[in-house]
Amino acid sequence: MKEHIVISKATIDRLPLYFRTLRLVQQEGTEIISSEELGRRIGVTPEQIRKDLASFGEFGKKGVGYFVRELIRNIGEILGLHRNWNIAIVGVGHLGWALANYKNFASLGFNLAAVFDVDPAKVGQLIGGVEIYSIDRLEEVARERNIHIGVITVPAESAQEVADKLVAAGVRGIWNFAPIKLNVADNVRLVSEDLSVGLSSISYYLSRQ
Amino acid sequence: MKEHIVISKATIDRLPLYFRTLRLVQQEGTEIISSEELGRRIGVTPEQIRKDLASFGEFGKKGVGYFVRELIRNIGEILGLHRNWNIAIVGVGHLGWALANYKNFASLGFNLAAVFDVDPAKVGQLIGGVEIYSIDRLEEVARERNIHIGVITVPAESAQEVADKLVAAGVRGIWNFAPIKLNVADNVRLVSEDLSVGLSSISYYLSRQ
Repeated sequence: MKEHIVISKATIDRLPLYFRTLRLVQQEGTEIISSEELGRRIGVTPEQIRKDLASFGEFGKKGVGYFVRELIRNIGEILGLHRNWNIAIVGVGHLGWALANYKNFASLGFNLAAVFDVDPAKVGQLIGGVEIYSIDRLEEVARERNIHIGVITVPAESAQEVADKLVAAGVRGIWNFAPIKLNVADNVRLVSEDLSVGLSSISYYLSRQ
Repeated sequence: MKEHIVISKATIDRLPLYFRTLRLVQQEGTEIISSEELGRRIGVTPEQIRKDLASFGEFGKKGVGYFVRELIRNIGEILGLHRNWNIAIVGVGHLGWALANYKNFASLGFNLAAVFDVDPAKVGQLIGGVEIYSIDRLEEVARERNIHIGVITVPAESAQEVADKLVAAGVRGIWNFAPIKLNVADNVRLVSEDLSVGLSSISYYLSRQ
């Protein structure tokens, strides 16, 4: 697996797009696809796709294209998908609800195993087929359910405390939506989403037209 | 403004993080901040910050730091924020609700001007202080409200049709959350969010521990 280590973050971030698009292509009954067609559907250049895929192995046939099923299996393995990662969502606002019901996650092999909220009125309710637990039981339930990845959708002021409890419970992946910089140990993989980035990027380009 | 054109996309994507962090710093009463402290709070290296900021001008004093208020104003101008961009959200599922109530947008100068949904039961309701209109009136209302940016939170199968209607109504910025590749004219700025990318990135690293 050594060669996977050298894949750039930019490439890793594109792999899920390749993966998802290839699965759509497969559903359409296509068995072989060219880098041109794949690039057209994803919105990147064929050169970029050939470069990305070449960075972790030899796929497809020159002048023929990529074998869809093989490529899906390989990219899935590289991304560590379908290992049934257990994920927990902490904070059941609208975003927490949206994520708990986001179909793509299950199809990628992520298993919603627990949901937590501070509101007693929500505790005991079902969301995405999973019971909502009191945030007071976060550590206990996260450990019991063997949670691998914690999704933080609480307000900024509670996010660090939630992250600390998740890590204390053995969670090694944190996906943070709270608009605040979290501090976690080096052996914890933290990915923070900032919804204002996409909008600001559009604003940047619009203001130049 | 020529020099702004050459800023790399990676830098542009970091600017909103700088902007948001600097505003927090300002609220704490700090007037000058070093690249080390700013980097620590954002989670990037001081070198990266100095490189990013140097790419669009001279800020701060060597050995002193950056002047927070000045830097906030400059980054805001570069990102084209506070021009009161009118945004419309199309599709009031949980994600649409979450985005309509996302406080950060207003604080960046984005004005939620219209919301649309296909469900007659939702039409007429208020969301984020704005009335929900029938999606049948998308073109008419988007034009009337001078919508600059359309946020697409409808299911994948309706996303392209919604994008086409927004563009037909003069919308030049599209922020797409539907898990599908949209096709828009070259004069339209399209940013697509893929929520499975962050999670797959975590999965990639966890599977290597």
